Amino acid sequence: MDHAKPLPAYLVQRYHGWKATQYAENSAWYQRLATEGQRPRAMVISCCDSRVHVTSIFGADQGEFFIHRNIANLVPPYEPDGNQHGTSAAVEYAVTALKVAHVIVLGHSQCGGVQGCLDMCEGRAPELEESSSFVGRWMDILRPGYEEVKDDPNMPTALEREAVIVSLRNLMTFPFVEEAVKAGKLSLHGLWTDIGEGGLECYDPKTKAFSPI
Amino acid sequence: MDHAKPLPAYLVQRYHGWKATQYAENSAWYQRLATEGQRPRAMVISCCDSRVHVTSIFGADQGEFFIHRNIANLVPPYEPDGNQHGTSAAVEYAVTALKVAHVIVLGHSQCGGVQGCLDMCEGRAPELEESSSFVGRWMDILRPGYEEVKDDPNMPTALEREAVIVSLRNLMTFPFVEEAVKAGKLSLHGLWTDIGEGGLECYDPKTKAFSPI
Amino acid sequence: MDHAKPLPAYLVQRYHGWKATQYAENSAWYQRLATEGQRPRAMVISCCDSRVHVTSIFGADQGEFFIHRNIANLVPPYEPDGNQHGTSAAVEYAVTALKVAHVIVLGHSQCGGVQGCLDMCEGRAPELEESSSFVGRWMDILRPGYEEVKDDPNMPTALEREAVIVSLRNLMTFPFVEEAVKAGKLSLHGLWTDIGEGGLECYDPKTKAFSPI
Amino acid sequence: MDHAKPLPAYLVQRYHGWKATQYAENSAWYQRLATEGQRPRAMVISCCDSRVHVTSIFGADQGEFFIHRNIANLVPPYEPDGNQHGTSAAVEYAVTALKVAHVIVLGHSQCGGVQGCLDMCEGRAPELEESSSFVGRWMDILRPGYEEVKDDPNMPTALEREAVIVSLRNLMTFPFVEEAVKAGKLSLHGLWTDIGEGGLECYDPKTKAFSPI
Repeated sequence: MDHAKPLPAYLVQRYHGWKATQYAENSAWYQRLATEGQRPRAMVISCCDSRVHVTSIFGADQGEFFIHRNIANLVPPYEPDGNQHGTSAAVEYAVTALKVAHVIVLGHSQCGGVQGCLDMCEGRAPELEESSSFVGRWMDILRPGYEEVKDDPNMPTALEREAVIVSLRNLMTFPFVEEAVKAGKLSLHGLWTDIGEGGLECYDPKTKAFSPI
Repeated sequence: MDHAKPLPAYLVQRYHGWKATQYAENSAWYQRLATEGQRPRAMVISCCDSRVHVTSIFGADQGEFFIHRNIANLVPPYEPDGNQHGTSAAVEYAVTALKVAHVIVLGHSQCGGVQGCLDMCEGRAPELEESSSFVGRWMDILRPGYEEVKDDPNMPTALEREAVIVSLRNLMTFPFVEEAVKAGKLSLHGLWTDIGEGGLECYDPKTKAFSPI
Repeated sequence: MDHAKPLPAYLVQRYHGWKATQYAENSAWYQRLATEGQRPRAMVISCCDSRVHVTSIFGADQGEFFIHRNIANLVPPYEPDGNQHGTSAAVEYAVTALKVAHVIVLGHSQCGGVQGCLDMCEGRAPELEESSSFVGRWMDILRPGYEEVKDDPNMPTALEREAVIVSLRNLMTFPFVEEAVKAGKLSLHGLWTDIGEGGLECYDPKTKAFSPI
Repeated sequence: MDHAKPLPAYLVQRYHGWKATQYAENSAWYQRLATEGQRPRAMVISCCDSRVHVTSIFGADQGEFFIHRNIANLVPPYEPDGNQHGTSAAVEYAVTALKVAHVIVLGHSQCGGVQGCLDMCEGRAPELEESSSFVGRWMDILRPGYEEVKDDPNMPTALEREAVIVSLRNLMTFPFVEEAVKAGKLSLHGLWTDIGEGGLECYDPKTKAFSPI
């Protein structure tokens, strides 16, 4: 690997600032986290989008949330085919090894991945339909969701919310998730946040709708 | 999806606190981010581990970093086989759509995924070798790295650092990454942080070693 | 223009050092900034004083802050009289063209401009009262501020802080600033830094005072 | 002034980081700067553009450069009419009070102000021609420069460079500048930097052209 570069100077400076303040003031906690291991209460599945910081929204500190972030906060269905499934690995580790009490799927407004899926499903993005498109193949996970909401006038929001529901549904296809949920050891939660308004909505299975918390 | 539950009250409370303070004080910025879209300078590939918050270490705010988090901050090699590759999709989106200037791979100490890989490679974790183990199959990405460092006395640290190098090397197998790097439009960076000590080391391709920044 | 001279050698040398290091390590980001244009989150109005570097205090890198620097970080009142108003032009560009989310006015201790204003207002600087004195006429902007605090025993600090408040108040006289603030698209912030102590205080409109952050 | 808000949390965090590192390591120097006053060697007149940090390019520390930043790094002609001239006040203070040895005018590529001037002069920006446009009236300073280079095929670069020359020429209309230059106590320098390439060019009055340093 000959191409790695030094870290930009402004990040070096900010790191040293963090070390001398946030770290220094909490070093006992960091050391205990290192020695005793993590014991997060919840797993969060969130988007890579730079505008969505779940740690900020929930004031979470080091050690609270086990966080997986991928394009459009998607969970694929259970498929134990021996291939590499990064999201499934993260879910497996959180539920079976860390035994988290909650899995929270957090969707959001203005999601570029969901918009790409919508364009693809409506025939406007042939490049995403090519088998070599990683984003296209990844967003295939949401195709069944598109079928559910394609007539909804409130696009792409409806599909962003559906991405949360699809992920929750797919989570339940994992035997260890289903077992933990049924045993009352794990609860699942679906959220959608509006970036511009700072809104947060929670999925309610009774009304089959999202409502502000 | 009938199993979703309401959000735990302590998170509801924290959200309302965030909305009334951090959001309220920065609503102008959130609205602009929503309207104009994200334009992050860097992509960060970090671990799901609850103890590693890259936004904290680098004082990054909403909009700065496009963050993908998976088990052991791994990037698989380029494999355009039409299957679902969540990490590859995230890299593709960051480099080709968002045109980030940096990709930073951030490894860390006490990594459970790396420890699992080490146990598996050394025959102590037969359950991870089963084809149905998502964590095992995911950690297969690091097997070539294990071969490189298996005689290193400083385990599992050596393998945690090797995970960063393997990811950097695999990143270069993506044609769009290689092209952007060679055109000077993208630079790659490898980091490893010590959770307990708050240390941060950067990979230097000249010395082929990590050194404190 | 026959009087321009070559750059002093020590600056030439430092430039080449920057080019070979900081620039080389971040060339991808510089190229993207050049191609896509700037999108700063905040405008900072700071003093020309050589001792106050806002980019340093806030670990800001290229592209983060749109920075106007003038004597004593002053903003004059809105005066669309067709004359040249450099500060008003900078504010107009930041708010209407760049649509920054924050305008931060940063005052500081030991401000030569504020001291000059104080001397002038107290009759000790007749040369600043001459109509040909650019510094004197510029500092006239702060005269109403002097009237507010002239009996404060803590001079010139009180007047330095008042310069920040006067500028914030004058900012609100610009229709496009007022409109953006009222629409929640822009927030204003007043700061004062103590050069020797490295202190930073923020203006709180509720207490009408500055307090350490 | 009832509209001021608290500083965003990420800036508060970064400030505390700076205080604990950069400031702490250099507090002796900061205290001396506070006690003895500034004694900058050079004044720099640069653009507000967030992409141009003269302190970075020249590795300048606190106390080295007295920096005025306005739209398009312009200096208006000497006009002692009793009105407010922020740029002229900064030049006056630097040359007569601080007695700097150099005044450096730093232009740059992709300058939004210069592009606006070009659009205005070529009839494409009627909104900038209105008397209420602060940016338009400010860019009037560059109109004579436009007349000089309007047939140059290399626009807007030619006009960006001309902005530097116009400012240098206008500087010499200030009696105290002319006097200091003629007495050998002050030298003027014209620079232009290419943001994307990291290039730096210096104006040479003999060739009447800019060439790389």
